[in-house]
Amino acid sequence: MKTDIQIAQEAKLQPIREVAASLGISEDDLELYGKYKAKLSSGFMNEIKDREDGKLVLVTAINPTPAGEGKTTTSIGLAQGLTKLGKKTVAALREPSLGPCFGIKGGAAGGGYAQVVPMEDLNLHFTGDFHAITSANNLLAAMIDNHIQQGNALRIDTRDIVWKRCLDMNDRALRNIVVGLGRKVDGVVREDHFVITVASEIMAILCLANDMEDLKKRLGKIIVAYNMDKEPVTAAELNAVGAMAALLKDALKPNLIQTLEHTPAFVHGGPFANIAHGCNSVQATKMALKLSDITVTEAGFGADLGAEKFLDIKCPMAGLSPDAVVLVATVRALKYNGGVSKEDLGREDIDALSRGIVNLEKHISNLKQYGVPVVVTLNRFVTDTEAELDFIKHFCEERDCDFALSEVWEKGGDGGIELGKAVLRTLETKKSEYRPLYSYEDTSIEEKIETIATKIYGADNVIYAPAAARQKKQLTELGYGNLPVCMAKNQYSLSDDPKKLGRPENFDITIREIYVNAGAGFVVALTGDIMTMPGLPKKPAAEGIDVNEDGEITGLF
Amino acid sequence: MKTDIQIAQEAKLQPIREVAASLGISEDDLELYGKYKAKLSSGFMNEIKDREDGKLVLVTAINPTPAGEGKTTTSIGLAQGLTKLGKKTVAALREPSLGPCFGIKGGAAGGGYAQVVPMEDLNLHFTGDFHAITSANNLLAAMIDNHIQQGNALRIDTRDIVWKRCLDMNDRALRNIVVGLGRKVDGVVREDHFVITVASEIMAILCLANDMEDLKKRLGKIIVAYNMDKEPVTAAELNAVGAMAALLKDALKPNLIQTLEHTPAFVHGGPFANIAHGCNSVQATKMALKLSDITVTEAGFGADLGAEKFLDIKCPMAGLSPDAVVLVATVRALKYNGGVSKEDLGREDIDALSRGIVNLEKHISNLKQYGVPVVVTLNRFVTDTEAELDFIKHFCEERDCDFALSEVWEKGGDGGIELGKAVLRTLETKKSEYRPLYSYEDTSIEEKIETIATKIYGADNVIYAPAAARQKKQLTELGYGNLPVCMAKNQYSLSDDPKKLGRPENFDITIREIYVNAGAGFVVALTGDIMTMPGLPKKPAAEGIDVNEDGEITGLF
Repeated sequence: MKTDIQIAQEAKLQPIREVAASLGISEDDLELYGKYKAKLSSGFMNEIKDREDGKLVLVTAINPTPAGEGKTTTSIGLAQGLTKLGKKTVAALREPSLGPCFGIKGGAAGGGYAQVVPMEDLNLHFTGDFHAITSANNLLAAMIDNHIQQGNALRIDTRDIVWKRCLDMNDRALRNIVVGLGRKVDGVVREDHFVITVASEIMAILCLANDMEDLKKRLGKIIVAYNMDKEPVTAAELNAVGAMAALLKDALKPNLIQTLEHTPAFVHGGPFANIAHGCNSVQATKMALKLSDITVTEAGFGADLGAEKFLDIKCPMAGLSPDAVVLVATVRALKYNGGVSKEDLGREDIDALSRGIVNLEKHISNLKQYGVPVVVTLNRFVTDTEAELDFIKHFCEERDCDFALSEVWEKGGDGGIELGKAVLRTLETKKSEYRPLYSYEDTSIEEKIETIATKIYGADNVIYAPAAARQKKQLTELGYGNLPVCMAKNQYSLSDDPKKLGRPENFDITIREIYVNAGAGFVVALTGDIMTMPGLPKKPAAEGIDVNEDGEITGLF
Repeated sequence: MKTDIQIAQEAKLQPIREVAASLGISEDDLELYGKYKAKLSSGFMNEIKDREDGKLVLVTAINPTPAGEGKTTTSIGLAQGLTKLGKKTVAALREPSLGPCFGIKGGAAGGGYAQVVPMEDLNLHFTGDFHAITSANNLLAAMIDNHIQQGNALRIDTRDIVWKRCLDMNDRALRNIVVGLGRKVDGVVREDHFVITVASEIMAILCLANDMEDLKKRLGKIIVAYNMDKEPVTAAELNAVGAMAALLKDALKPNLIQTLEHTPAFVHGGPFANIAHGCNSVQATKMALKLSDITVTEAGFGADLGAEKFLDIKCPMAGLSPDAVVLVATVRALKYNGGVSKEDLGREDIDALSRGIVNLEKHISNLKQYGVPVVVTLNRFVTDTEAELDFIKHFCEERDCDFALSEVWEKGGDGGIELGKAVLRTLETKKSEYRPLYSYEDTSIEEKIETIATKIYGADNVIYAPAAARQKKQLTELGYGNLPVCMAKNQYSLSDDPKKLGRPENFDITIREIYVNAGAGFVVALTGDIMTMPGLPKKPAAEGIDVNEDGEITGLF
């Protein structure tokens, strides 16, 4: 069997100019990065802003399991399938982070015959967006420490600096550090932390910004620290906004690449789906909608995290209205949710399936709260039996969800035709009555958290650790009560205990910490420990990566 | 008067495809980065490798002063002038570092009407080379700490890790840090340091590598630490080479841009000129030589650092043989060397000039030791008087150096015609009998240091601090005695005391520390304190930088 990178490298790519031309984009509006990648010039969105939008389809999934669901693969395969069905389709996806490529997870460009290419470029530096974010993040950090070193006119409390440095690397040794050691000229000693670049607030800002003006406004609002009077100190007060924006000027422009079957794909931005909102950029999504009949996009982790944030943060902020949601599951993952061990997932087990399918059921009913029609798809594995597939199909149809098998990993667009047809049927027959779960203005931070915890997670109560209770009060007093809440929760369970699979009941959600990302424009509520700087495993994937004299890369997956 | 960035932004650039076509490079050999930047594909050097080389001209300078010499500006202006004189000329320059752009120094793309463009791109992310180096550097660092965390099979002594993390940022708080704090899963606590990316050994390696194979060989030899038996531990032993090389695969390819007058410029690599060799990449220089009649290149800081390393490290390693050296000075800088204060440099002062010109004299006689003809040029200022200019002209001609005024800042290529003619005259009438100052094989580390210190700096003796004496012995025992020595010295004085201007005499050079960059292939000898991570000033340049809605940048200089 061929590996993903082999399939990607054997693919015959179209010059990106031709892919762009298929969307009616002229070469003048492209900034080429080699032959197969391009950014859209900053004036382009203005040229097309009065066109009508196509349909917006979100791909999300049940809670992730070690069995794997293939959300990005399904998104890409669906876009390829819809293209085969004659629909002008664009995929709008997240850029992968460099860190996991060298760790366990590998790259993130889809899989099998449903990939976006050039796969190696995308998984390595791509068009430099993440490096630009790293630079802007660390310029701000350097300006904070320099401000303190040069006299600290803003009276920053060095014990209360909330801005962290970042690197696009899995590097646990940088989680907790002390900086500024040495002599007087070497800075002020304080505790500091590195996060991975995708966890930087700048990533979330870049993805939510409508344009350069909005980007700068958001950058200016970033709270970097609190002063000795506990008042916020912002990036604007450090005069850092212009230089950060200059560093981000190209990163702000959407990137265009293609699927293995030449379907255009905007791959732009990639914030974490726990401490941030987990969606590709607003600009890329909006551009895709102007250029296509159907835009297929996705959001990170399961529907309780990614879809919730797409529907409650990205869409309301950007004025987007989704027309359908595709919910991805696998037989194996549902059995795993039903208590089957990883080793036994290949055996038919309808009992386990019926115990585990409650996870799917909860996500279906969650999505319906938003008024958006749902299509369920099963990412098919060879071990799946007819009885198992029938069971799930029947289960979904009883809940008024269209259902389709997906075989895009193995067959590319051909394997996505059935799903494509189901999506088209839903778009044609069911009208979306999308509405967010809560109003930003009319609910308090507390009410927002409670709404998400009870209506989406299925919790009974929300419990606040003493620090979180204090922070909730403080942030409300500072005027941040009308921002949406971005919940940081483990991705494996609907509850805040990653071991509770299926559809947990009779549980409470404990909020450990609450803080504001004033630039991104949301309040973050942390449940449990959330990792913002991953580590490398015993044998990092990096050890297997190589490149030959002709620049061909092996071992990336 | 227009600022550099205004001049650069008003310039009408040629599409880089046309610039490449002027060198006979077809579009198939280009990897475009937007309309005005390109990398040369990895196969291109092979296509042209059998062509004859053009002439190689190095631009260097007297010791830098706060008055400014304009070495890069002169290099670019000379290339423009030679182009006006009908010679097929290519400039081969270093890429600027992002850090200083936000600090004091500003960008480094030449000045006035002798600039390479697009200036903003070059000074910000350019084609991502430095980001790739940062990533590769920090991947290796993460793999070191991960190796220790996962059991430390190689028995790395955590007190003797020599590999440092890096960022392309001026950030003094990261000079001395402690990493690995927190819980057991958060790594092993140890002292660490960040350097600026241009100080990473990977920068030196990338610039000295002949091709991908050579790059990987060098990466593998990097010494990251010593084990409990004091034996070196290398990047190869950590299995980091392939992944690092994959990260560097595009960074290894030379970048092509243009001067304001469309002269092609390869701008590639930019290592420090103190702890590293301070020259642009070997690959770019070699490519330029194959494509041009004359290649104009430069090296960092004054001739005692940059030219010495160009002539003793880069040329011997790469098999290059320079045909002429242009030595840049200014009347103001020579008067400053003669003891005039910065405020009084505008006043005619032949006495001071005659006191300060000894600095120029020493550099002329130093360069002659290499057997390469020298042309002296004065970067002209409005305050220079005829008497002063005549004095210097006469001084140079007495020493058998051709002499020419340069007015390239104000007049571009037209201001470089006189210098261009002088260079052509020298190339036609004087034969280079280039030979390095010492033999790699036949001299010990001690003899090499002594040769440079006495013959180039003019020192009487070399004194070794106890640590340095020990390290010299240890490195010789480890088999590194046949590598060239890269001297790390302050750039302001020929001595190791930055306050001793002019031509210091009766002084000793003290070597504080000696270590090996086994991948780059040189031994570094430190004199005095060398800064490898700059800090930001009271009012960082970053505070004045901005970008507007159309992506136009202001405040970069």
